[in-house]
Order: sequence, then C-alpha cells, then structure tokens
Amino acid sequence: MNFSIDRKYFYDQLSIVARAISPYSPLPALSGICIQVEADHLILMGSDSTISIKTIIEPNEENQLKIESTGSIIIESKYLLEIIRKLECKIVSFELFDDTLIRIEGDHGTFHLNGIEGSEYPSIDFYQPQNEFILSKKQLKEIVRQTGFACADSDSRPVLNGINFNMQGENLYCSATDTYRLARKRITLPQENTFNITISNRSLNEIVKSLNQEEEDIQIFVDQKKAQFIFDGTTFQTRLLDGTFPDVERIIPQHFISTLQIDARELSNAIDRTNFILTDKVHLIKLECTPKIVEIKTRSSEIGDSKEELLSSIYGGEDLTLTCNGSYMLDALKALGSSRVELSFTGVLKPIKISDPEDDSTLMIVVPVRSID
Amino acid sequence: MNFSIDRKYFYDQLSIVARAISPYSPLPALSGICIQVEADHLILMGSDSTISIKTIIEPNEENQLKIESTGSIIIESKYLLEIIRKLECKIVSFELFDDTLIRIEGDHGTFHLNGIEGSEYPSIDFYQPQNEFILSKKQLKEIVRQTGFACADSDSRPVLNGINFNMQGENLYCSATDTYRLARKRITLPQENTFNITISNRSLNEIVKSLNQEEEDIQIFVDQKKAQFIFDGTTFQTRLLDGTFPDVERIIPQHFISTLQIDARELSNAIDRTNFILTDKVHLIKLECTPKIVEIKTRSSEIGDSKEELLSSIYGGEDLTLTCNGSYMLDALKALGSSRVELSFTGVLKPIKISDPEDDSTLMIVVPVRSID
Repeated sequence: MNFSIDRKYFYDQLSIVARAISPYSPLPALSGICIQVEADHLILMGSDSTISIKTIIEPNEENQLKIESTGSIIIESKYLLEIIRKLECKIVSFELFDDTLIRIEGDHGTFHLNGIEGSEYPSIDFYQPQNEFILSKKQLKEIVRQTGFACADSDSRPVLNGINFNMQGENLYCSATDTYRLARKRITLPQENTFNITISNRSLNEIVKSLNQEEEDIQIFVDQKKAQFIFDGTTFQTRLLDGTFPDVERIIPQHFISTLQIDARELSNAIDRTNFILTDKVHLIKLECTPKIVEIKTRSSEIGDSKEELLSSIYGGEDLTLTCNGSYMLDALKALGSSRVELSFTGVLKPIKISDPEDDSTLMIVVPVRSID
Repeated sequence: MNFSIDRKYFYDQLSIVARAISPYSPLPALSGICIQVEADHLILMGSDSTISIKTIIEPNEENQLKIESTGSIIIESKYLLEIIRKLECKIVSFELFDDTLIRIEGDHGTFHLNGIEGSEYPSIDFYQPQNEFILSKKQLKEIVRQTGFACADSDSRPVLNGINFNMQGENLYCSATDTYRLARKRITLPQENTFNITISNRSLNEIVKSLNQEEEDIQIFVDQKKAQFIFDGTTFQTRLLDGTFPDVERIIPQHFISTLQIDARELSNAIDRTNFILTDKVHLIKLECTPKIVEIKTRSSEIGDSKEELLSSIYGGEDLTLTCNGSYMLDALKALGSSRVELSFTGVLKPIKISDPEDDSTLMIVVPVRSID
C-alpha cells in the first residue's frame, strides 16, 4: 500500500470517520481508522459497532489522490488525526511496511506508526435498507435541535434515549420524551411512506456535527434494524434503539382551560434569573396567572425567594396557579425559538402545551409538579 | 442598610472581589461577599484567608451610588453575582431586613436572599507593608505569563508553587522553578530597593485576571508577611509563601560548548507535531545537532517514531545529541515569545539555556534527561 493525497482534504475526511470511534473500545481494531486502498479508490472506515461511517475517496483535482499500490491497515485514530492536522505540507504520502508499520511523510517530517493489519477489522455490513426518504441538512439539524434535548439519558428505558421518527403518509413526526416533557416536530415530505423507528440522540448528534455548510440533501434509508444516512460522499449508519416508543399522540392535550401568550424572551429571562433558587437541587417556578396580572415566583427556604411580573403577557381563561421545572420550561422555550410563545393549560397538575402561536408544526409539553407551598 | 447603585458597575466590582472567594470554604462567612455600607461609601470584601480583596466605592456620576442608611451583610457570592448579572435594569437597589435577609430589586424583579450578619465576617488586616514598588499592568502580566508556567504544583515544597520576586538595587528578578526547569525575567525599576519574597502563582493569576485594559500602574507593597496590590480602587492582598526560594543564579550556566539559533516557530511546531509519541506518558524529544544538520527525533516502542530536519537552524560548536522533555521545551518557547531563539548547551545532561538572541532580560532553563535509546 502506497498513496499520496492532499493533506487538508484527507484530514477533513478522517475527522468525519473518526466521529464513530470510541476511545474506550474494548476491541483494539475499533479504536483505529481502517484505510483500504484499492486500485482506483480509497476507503476510510470508523465504527464503535453501534455507529459506523464509511467514506470512499476517488482521485480528483481537489484531493490529488495518487495510488501506487493497494493494501490496508488500521491506524490508531487519535495519532493519525494529530499527525495529519499538524504536518505542514500540501501533499502527505503513506507507505506500508510489514502489514503493520506505516510511514507517513510530509515535506520534511517523517513518522512511523505501529498499526494493526487491515484484515483484522470487523466486517461491517453497509447494505442499504429499503425505505428511503430525503431531508435537507437544515431540516435534520432542526429536528435534532428542537427535539433532542427532551430525550432521556439513562439505561432504564433505552428507547427514550432517542428521537422517534414516525412517518404516516406524507407527515414525518419526530418526537422525544423523557416522560416529564415532550418535544415534537412535524415535517411534511413530498413522498408518502410508513415507518416507525427510534434513532439514538447520540448518533443523530454525531451526524449533525459531520454536516458541512453546503445546501445539500441527505438520503436516508431505514428498516427495522438500522438507519443509513448518505451525504457528501459519506455513508453514516447507526443501529436503531430497541423497544416501543410511547404513543405520544395520546399525551398531547386537545382541550384547554386557559392560555397565556407572552414574549418568549421575557419569559426565558425571568426564569433564567432565578435558576439558582433550588429546592432539593431542582429549579421550581410558580406561575400565578389571572387575566389582570401574571407573575412568576420561586422560593427556597435555604436560599431565598423571587417575584417578577411578566409585563408582556396576555392571559385568557380561569385563574390558575401551577408549579413546574424551570429548566424544562427554559429548554422548551429555547428549542421552540419563536419570538412569541403560547402556553396552553389544561389544569394545575396537567400537561402544559408550549407552542409558537404562528406555527403549529412544533410543540413542546411540560408536565407540572406538585406545588412547592 | 439601604442603597442603590448602577447595576453594571456594581457587577464589575463584585466580580473582582469574588475572585478571592473559594466555593469550598470551611467557614460559611467566607463563601460570601461582605457588603459594608457606611455613611458616604460602600465597602466590598472577599477572602479565602490567603487572598483578600477589598474595594471601596464612593458615590460618583458613573456608579450612581445613593446611600439611604448604613449597615452590613454577607451574601453568598454566587447567588449575588447571578442576580446582578441577569437583572435587566439600570439601577439596582438593596434593602436589609432583620440583619440577615436582603431585598434586591430591579425594575420589575424582586429577590430576597438569606445572608449572614456582617459582624460575623472575620476581621482582615489591610495594613500597608513598608516596601513599595510600582509595576505597570503590562509588566505584571508579562511576569506572570513568562515565568508562572515553570512553577511547581505540589504540596511537597510550597515555596516552589510561587514566583520569587528578588529585588537587588534597581533590578527586580522574577523567577519560577519546579527544579526541572526555570524561567527568569529581569525588570529594571527606577527606584532601588531590597527584598526577596515569593508570591503564589495562583494569587498572581487572580490579580492578573482582575486587571482591566486601562494603562494604569499598580502600587505594590511588600514585607515578610504579605504582598498588597493596589489598582483601580481595589486592594488585593495575599499571604507570602513560606520557605527559602532556591538560589537560581547558581543554576544558570555561564559557559557553553555549543549554541543553536533557530526560528522559534519551526522548533515549536516540530516538537508539537510529535506530542503524542510518549514514553511512560512523557513526551521525550532527541535533538541531534551537528554544524551540518540538526534533527529532532522521537521514539516510542508502542506508538512509533518520528524524524524531522530543522531547516532554519544555525549550529556552532561540537556535535551533540541530547534528550529533553518536549512539553517543557514547548512551554519555554511559548513563554519566551521571540521569533528567533538561541539554545545554549553545556553538555549532554547539563542545563540548556533558552533565550532571545536580541534580549537578555528573559531566560529559560530546561534540564535534559537520560537518553531514551
């Protein structure tokens, strides 16, 4: 194996593949990047056995790839990235000795790294699942940003650590919940389809971080085992989360006893100001709503208390006082990202729906807690 | 106690005083900021019993301080800073109830915080030591940046955790060493003086972080117990480190067998590129110098090896091969900050002097280690 390639281009490709690699892999081969050099292209692979990423590089003007001989090797990802990032040269060349020692050479620096024989890399099946749909990079980023925060983060119900993609006809519903709150985003797609899968939030975050700024689409292929994302010449696949995702439609309230419209920033800032007033390490806020005045209050016997009137609020319906987790409310407001926000109430201890009054495609639910007083 | 003050101004002053406060203070009063309101001024104090900071605020146009009644209280520093930072108002007002409950009020947010009676604050002696000298803010920053990195960081010899200020006549020698390396900077001051004290690197870092951008001087007062820094209306004092600082003059070599002049960036980059090639977790680099060629090599039986020729080097003297800690060398080059650098050698296992060929006020020493081969 002997090839040379544009250093910067190669570094960018290695960085993407390295996203799949866990430094704590029990299998030594999986802590490395597998480089396979074929006669007319080069394959990079990284995997932690849940997420796998593959990039195929074919010679072109930009990458200046020149292949002299074929072969394969697995190189410790962190060393390889470190060298390629720091070498000061346009073209970097690689030459393999004895199947396990690779020479990496820039303009005047030479490295020899001990690797593992390429044949020891676990065989990863990159078959393409049947169900296909397409999202823009922007859409996928929005889904992850607007729902991922509501995922659980525990081993007790793994399926809640992911975002559920439920496609019904032409509507794709993306939902996440840790049972105390819910985030849901609806996207309408041009082609009808039916599937219901849950992808781990961690995998989705790694994909989103791998997306460059270009305005391209992502091809997504799913079945009951895995989801595969294809973009920028990279194939990114992840195992699905096992388990049945809760039927969130049933949780979303339809009838309300009152609504509060308010400037989202005013509400966020008022909540954020009190985020140190904790009761048993939880930031509880009390909303006291009447059509005349809406106030937000906190109290902790140890620290102190606070009170603030929400001046931009318009409240309609019966008087209501309820308490909820301030951090959950803040997360929801931030993810919603609208300038005005509507809080729809169903009762003192019943779910609060939080939405943009001008856009019903995204909604958040926060469940109140028992009053602190 | 009842006063109001410009929120932004007050926040900046609180932030400085808070630098002295350790969140892990065993004395509850010391986890707070002490606010003392006198008839015509306000005093803020923070301390961890090693470092103490005091600021006196007198009413003026900028701070809009208005005092209605006097009194004192100690308020948990992190809560106070959080509130004052996040309140959205120009003027914030304070009112004390029952000696331990304070009301903080902005335009439409009100907080009550539980505090501790001001009388419980430990009495801190802010007397002024006799020996005075003056440094510009820039000079003090340079001293800390160029020598502080060489301080030790262990409890075995506390005096090595500080920077030694040794004033002899009109020369102030600032030195730090962890016994494996040394950094020394000489500053010539207009007034003669004699003292030899060691100030902890941590204290000096807190002072440097408190300095604003303005081009003012710092008055420094020292005796055998403490050092006091006065700037921007703030009094910052710290206990000195006990123990006798080593006589570093004796360590600095005077006679050399060879010298290497080189572009500092080329040398830094070459060392930095190999920083993952570790032997027993230490980054060892081997310099092979001859008048014809200077090379830098690393080797680790586990990871691999590297070799690079240093093209900008000019070497004079006998052939020499030595090994030293690459991280120490990098630190020294970074702190020196010159574009070209001179390495003066005294032998295979003897101290290397690193200096700017055009400025002899600052020098670094790195002690080589036994060869890795």
